[in-house]
Amino acid sequence: MKEYDVVVIGGSAAGITAAITARKHYPNKSIVLIRKENLVPIPCGIPYTFGIVGSPMKNLIPVDNLLSNNKVEYAVDEVTGINRSEHVISTQSGEMFKYGKLILATGSNPIIPLIPGREKKNVFAINKDVPYLQNLIEKLEKINDLCIVGCGFIGVEIAEECRRRRPGLNISIVEMLSHCLQLVYDEEFCINAEKVLKEQNINLLLDEKVDALLGEETVEKVKLSSGKEIKADMVIMGIGAVANIRLAETAGLEIGPTKAIQVNRYMQTSDDDIFACGDCAEKVSFFDGKPSGLKLASIATMEARMAGANLFSIRRVNMGVIGVFSTVLGGSAFAAAGLTKAQAEAKGYSVIVGESEAVNRHPGCMPGAANLKVRLIFEAGSGVILGGQVTGATSSGELINVVSACINQRMTADDIATFQTGTHPALTASPIAYQLVNAAENAIGNMYMK
Amino acid sequence: MKEYDVVVIGGSAAGITAAITARKHYPNKSIVLIRKENLVPIPCGIPYTFGIVGSPMKNLIPVDNLLSNNKVEYAVDEVTGINRSEHVISTQSGEMFKYGKLILATGSNPIIPLIPGREKKNVFAINKDVPYLQNLIEKLEKINDLCIVGCGFIGVEIAEECRRRRPGLNISIVEMLSHCLQLVYDEEFCINAEKVLKEQNINLLLDEKVDALLGEETVEKVKLSSGKEIKADMVIMGIGAVANIRLAETAGLEIGPTKAIQVNRYMQTSDDDIFACGDCAEKVSFFDGKPSGLKLASIATMEARMAGANLFSIRRVNMGVIGVFSTVLGGSAFAAAGLTKAQAEAKGYSVIVGESEAVNRHPGCMPGAANLKVRLIFEAGSGVILGGQVTGATSSGELINVVSACINQRMTADDIATFQTGTHPALTASPIAYQLVNAAENAIGNMYMK
Repeated sequence: MKEYDVVVIGGSAAGITAAITARKHYPNKSIVLIRKENLVPIPCGIPYTFGIVGSPMKNLIPVDNLLSNNKVEYAVDEVTGINRSEHVISTQSGEMFKYGKLILATGSNPIIPLIPGREKKNVFAINKDVPYLQNLIEKLEKINDLCIVGCGFIGVEIAEECRRRRPGLNISIVEMLSHCLQLVYDEEFCINAEKVLKEQNINLLLDEKVDALLGEETVEKVKLSSGKEIKADMVIMGIGAVANIRLAETAGLEIGPTKAIQVNRYMQTSDDDIFACGDCAEKVSFFDGKPSGLKLASIATMEARMAGANLFSIRRVNMGVIGVFSTVLGGSAFAAAGLTKAQAEAKGYSVIVGESEAVNRHPGCMPGAANLKVRLIFEAGSGVILGGQVTGATSSGELINVVSACINQRMTADDIATFQTGTHPALTASPIAYQLVNAAENAIGNMYMK
Repeated sequence: MKEYDVVVIGGSAAGITAAITARKHYPNKSIVLIRKENLVPIPCGIPYTFGIVGSPMKNLIPVDNLLSNNKVEYAVDEVTGINRSEHVISTQSGEMFKYGKLILATGSNPIIPLIPGREKKNVFAINKDVPYLQNLIEKLEKINDLCIVGCGFIGVEIAEECRRRRPGLNISIVEMLSHCLQLVYDEEFCINAEKVLKEQNINLLLDEKVDALLGEETVEKVKLSSGKEIKADMVIMGIGAVANIRLAETAGLEIGPTKAIQVNRYMQTSDDDIFACGDCAEKVSFFDGKPSGLKLASIATMEARMAGANLFSIRRVNMGVIGVFSTVLGGSAFAAAGLTKAQAEAKGYSVIVGESEAVNRHPGCMPGAANLKVRLIFEAGSGVILGGQVTGATSSGELINVVSACINQRMTADDIATFQTGTHPALTASPIAYQLVNAAENAIGNMYMK
């Protein structure tokens, strides 16, 4: 039996980051990572393998290099059981590993809803599995009518990348909410995103649910709850994921309200020697501490940095998920952090919104000039920031992380209006027009006018 | 005599922002801005008028529009005196304005050192004056040997833009310090910037002082303290600026240790009814509270947002300048915030540095991929961040503002290693490789290894 101070189960973003973090904090401990897949796709890169990246083989996490560069051992094997009293795990290949501390980073599986016809050929989900994705992309070359179910980030990114690969393909997206990306953006930003999709001749079916997938062996049509039927010789489900808790459940670890592995603020499960992080771990909202179903690679790595650091000496406390998102649609960035206005109001906040829009260069004739709009949401009494949305120039991808830092630090509109930002003609808006600061100042103006 | 609740003197970044801020916070007050220049150049855009922007006329702040959109009146006139006891200012054209509160935003003038030959023709400084700059650029077309004095941001930007305009021009930069940009970056980043300049065939003369400017009527040579003489039929001084305090001094306002108008944390001068902000106002360091000579448009607008909000009811407190810089050299961004390692050590800190470098896309074959390196400086005992430097991809221009938010909030290496960041294949590094977070984690690793 092999013996390690630390065993990590799972070889994607959370597992790798937990192992590397453990190495940095505990230079003398022995660490092994066990993963079941030989090839590990970059999760957020999967939609791009359908288009610009071209192939799942060009979208791999260099797991072995990352681990050996950080002096972490690894094995490709599937863990089948955890003996908690003995501190031993067993694997498919018959190996046994004794652990001091164990980290579960077993990830999630895509949701395939229980609708009639789900077993038909050419019905896919976004499995993080290279051969599965290769098969999907091969089939994509031969179809005429693609229906994507779910108009969240995965849905819109896959739609756009499929359009890039197959300019003549009929593409529909079915979404049960009234707007695409509605869980992340307020209405105006959603409508802008919808405009971009429509310009690419992508057919949006909003306020619609899928009732059944019709066809013989292979899917041929999607039947909607409105009665409408749409042609589809391929269906891709992009409606979220559920935590992979099989191993934890079998081992008797506590499972939380969103059916993920229950953890405390230190990322410990109900067994103090077993930590969990990433998509498999239960989460709470940063705002109200209530259970959150958010699953993002950036949250997974944050939790992994907590779990890895806390293994032998508690150091880091997880106050919950803010939710920081970004994507690119039609060449424009769409980014968001924290609560939308609608979400904040639903949680009971009285909110004030401030917006600011300007070109991201000064003067505006500098190369690379693009529009950039910031929308910030504040609690009206305290002025504390609750959320923000950014669209336009690609620097939005980092600007949203300024917003996230502000949310994390519970900065007020006054703090944001006066914190020191750097600006440059070739990189940002002018200091007079800097959108983040002006959105905060405009929110204050709106408070006076209320 | 005209009468206003608020009079602002100065029509560049600070004055405009102070007036707009006053309008937002005090919707019912009458506000006028008086500026002496008809055309106001965007200060940070001036180097680009020498090259990519092409002309000072394309680099103007739309002052009148900004002010009228915000219901601020304005006049083009030069203020000649302040009668503090009567609360009245008088102007060149003979007008009198009675003020309730007065904001001085009189800016700065470039330093021209007292060296022999400074009065010769073709010796220029970066005056924020459109006809002066137009004349400079016309002359630039006809010269053979340009010598720039000072290798700070202005010096390197002007050198690069002059190279863009005149590929065959001989360009030298004389710098008294050992490296270009040494006041902003640690050595490695400076050396990278120097490499970029040398690749553009720009001649760097480091550790050199100018002793005299030689020639008949027009400058012909620059004599250095080492004895070297270099050919130069034009000299541009880029060695900083001094506060324009004439008006304040004549009015008997207190002047501070860096020869700028003394202000308290609310941006009030020694007269409670007179505020000052921007380059003309005295500053202290965010870190030790000691006087700081930093002059940046982004600091000017921050101070203006404090002055404008505090006029009739104190609301905002200025804790001093962090210093957030960015530029682009040879297509790569160079950005910095707070203290360099050398500066922190000189102030007496025990420091730990963490670095992280990665491509800003994932997978690396995504379009727009560029390298991005982050270097963070922490106080070793508390882990509080003191500074950061970022080079590479243009998203550095916003990433440095994440660093600035972290400094402003006195976040620790653990806070930064675990605060929630958003990542996306088309916009940032992967969540595993995200440079800001990893630089903080690496700094912690370096603490263990110390």
